[in-house]
Amino acid sequence: MREVAVLGVGMQKWGELWEKSLRDIFVEAALLALDDSAIDHIDSMVVGCMSSGLFTGQEHLGSLLADYLGQAPVPGLRVESACASGGAAVRTGFMQVASGMHDIVLVSGVEKMTDVGGDEATYALGTAADQEYECFNGATFPGLYAMIARRHMYEFGTTSEQLAQIAVKNHDNGSRNPLAQFPMKISVDQVLGSVMIADPLHILDCSPITDGAAAVILGPIDLAKKLKKPLVKIIGSGQATDTIALQDREDMTDLKSTRKAAEDALAMAGKTIGDIDLAEVHDCFTIAEICITEALGFAEKGQGGKLVESGATALGGEIPVNTSGGLKSKGHPVGATGVAQIIEVVHQLRGEADKRQVKDARVGLTQNMGGSGGSAVVHILEAE
Amino acid sequence: MREVAVLGVGMQKWGELWEKSLRDIFVEAALLALDDSAIDHIDSMVVGCMSSGLFTGQEHLGSLLADYLGQAPVPGLRVESACASGGAAVRTGFMQVASGMHDIVLVSGVEKMTDVGGDEATYALGTAADQEYECFNGATFPGLYAMIARRHMYEFGTTSEQLAQIAVKNHDNGSRNPLAQFPMKISVDQVLGSVMIADPLHILDCSPITDGAAAVILGPIDLAKKLKKPLVKIIGSGQATDTIALQDREDMTDLKSTRKAAEDALAMAGKTIGDIDLAEVHDCFTIAEICITEALGFAEKGQGGKLVESGATALGGEIPVNTSGGLKSKGHPVGATGVAQIIEVVHQLRGEADKRQVKDARVGLTQNMGGSGGSAVVHILEAE
Repeated sequence: MREVAVLGVGMQKWGELWEKSLRDIFVEAALLALDDSAIDHIDSMVVGCMSSGLFTGQEHLGSLLADYLGQAPVPGLRVESACASGGAAVRTGFMQVASGMHDIVLVSGVEKMTDVGGDEATYALGTAADQEYECFNGATFPGLYAMIARRHMYEFGTTSEQLAQIAVKNHDNGSRNPLAQFPMKISVDQVLGSVMIADPLHILDCSPITDGAAAVILGPIDLAKKLKKPLVKIIGSGQATDTIALQDREDMTDLKSTRKAAEDALAMAGKTIGDIDLAEVHDCFTIAEICITEALGFAEKGQGGKLVESGATALGGEIPVNTSGGLKSKGHPVGATGVAQIIEVVHQLRGEADKRQVKDARVGLTQNMGGSGGSAVVHILEAE
Repeated sequence: MREVAVLGVGMQKWGELWEKSLRDIFVEAALLALDDSAIDHIDSMVVGCMSSGLFTGQEHLGSLLADYLGQAPVPGLRVESACASGGAAVRTGFMQVASGMHDIVLVSGVEKMTDVGGDEATYALGTAADQEYECFNGATFPGLYAMIARRHMYEFGTTSEQLAQIAVKNHDNGSRNPLAQFPMKISVDQVLGSVMIADPLHILDCSPITDGAAAVILGPIDLAKKLKKPLVKIIGSGQATDTIALQDREDMTDLKSTRKAAEDALAMAGKTIGDIDLAEVHDCFTIAEICITEALGFAEKGQGGKLVESGATALGGEIPVNTSGGLKSKGHPVGATGVAQIIEVVHQLRGEADKRQVKDARVGLTQNMGGSGGSAVVHILEAE
């Protein structure tokens, strides 16, 4: 396989972008990434998107977006793995370059979520769960993650304060990110005093509904060396599945797909988890980040609450997690999230993360997750 | 890149499968393909599906289907390129094997279309067109293809009888395929006497709404040589896009994405169109097959009507097209169609196509198309 580098990255400020359509926000991000790379053409396009059919009545995004970017007839492909669609798109683009099939691949993620009402958005997001066996019985994602949180509290003594500390940390990071949807700092008291959505999860334990796109340009190493930006390589990629329905798992606090994807990505990269300098992970709810830090091996099983309490995952801590603000503060346009995680790690490894820069960052990890952990994608990036 | 072989193939009889769910029909096809290959495990799964969100309220098929096939934690990915989703899935699986990332990849296509009513199905299929600029103005796919047909008639003198002959030929082929949805022979008079859907397209010029799944197992050549089935390799793969909206094309009878995808696939295979012994192409409407045979180079521009009239594309003709019955007779569960095209060519190249066997078939081509030609995927297969 050929070595693969990230040649350019781009995204707009995320939020409720009512005046722009799905194709508009994609083109914005793609042009920013092309500009960042200083490359004037692409050979292929991969777009990660969870549910443009239900959110906007539009499928066939490979063709639509290649056309609107003025890039037809290049191959255009959409990939989907629920909220891990962006990570899956990066992995697919990685293989297009690694195999030698294409040289320069534009990988984007996009989701336009605010053109529908709340009930419709809840239905659309529910399609990431088992529609016939979970949603049919009334489950929604806040409810599913609330069950994970309750079990984590019961087994390991995790507290609502520890959950809140995830949100506080990520909003603090997001306050340093000019592209974050909710860049305000919040306090533990504010989280605990906010409206209860699904006990024990308050609204400030939940990531928001967001419109947004993100794009990265992938290409072979020899081409990357000719460009002006510091060289960042993707050295490991792992993807795994688990039962889609939560009730089918032996242990609902154990994110097995994340563990497997991380093992595979680290093995491919020739690294251990101790080599990682920073990580962007899928904090769709605060409890998710706690379980993810355990599945990745940053904490022992059950100790994710204590990990955030210790400050180890804060900016300046031993292993900063979600320096971008994470899904919680930066926003969560589901298909775009996995691509934006790559963007944050690239900024960090290039040393251009400004007020949220992790000192001496050399190796970064991204972890993107679909549903309640039915799928996961992990990538390892390294600065040359 | 590693050479890639098709190790096994499987699909059920297609039709209105009301007693089975999407996951059921996928598992049926996947088990048939595994059985055909005599392989007992897979390393990765790719599923092509156009719009499970709108047709069944279920996304996240990579996880759902890996789980229901008992194959979690293998990576599971859904890819989408409207009605070319199946072909795009084959190409994605091809790259997974070619890159060395995975050894044994199950590529499937699936669509469950009859769980919604006619209006909902028309809306869902419309998401393959430009929703904001075509469907908003009242266009549907029969209408879009009717405009292509009218233009073809105006420019080249193509007749309704020639369109009907495509349907007659494909139903004749389908009558030899036990898995076809509509395996009855029809006559030109029956086509011309059937209800008009969008002038000049009668209902018998249109492919049906279908439930169905198809699966193929891809793997490296050295593994294929250890199995008992005759060796069939994928030697070329091409994918291309065009404007998604018909009104943006310079020439609406010219399927540029198909031309480009075929050029790329043939170049990769080291073949010319004259080397092809049979082809499975995307006859979603009879006019489509006429334009496709021109874009592929089986006929000169404008001469596709005369080609079918001459009998050259019939079984026993110079270049048999759609020996399986095509979308017209075999059925068109949109995401599954591109994978089923591979299955037919594999059966032909193995010499196991029974009553529809093409004599001395050595090299076959598949052409799968999204929307009105906004995307196309072409593969070339060869018997060892």
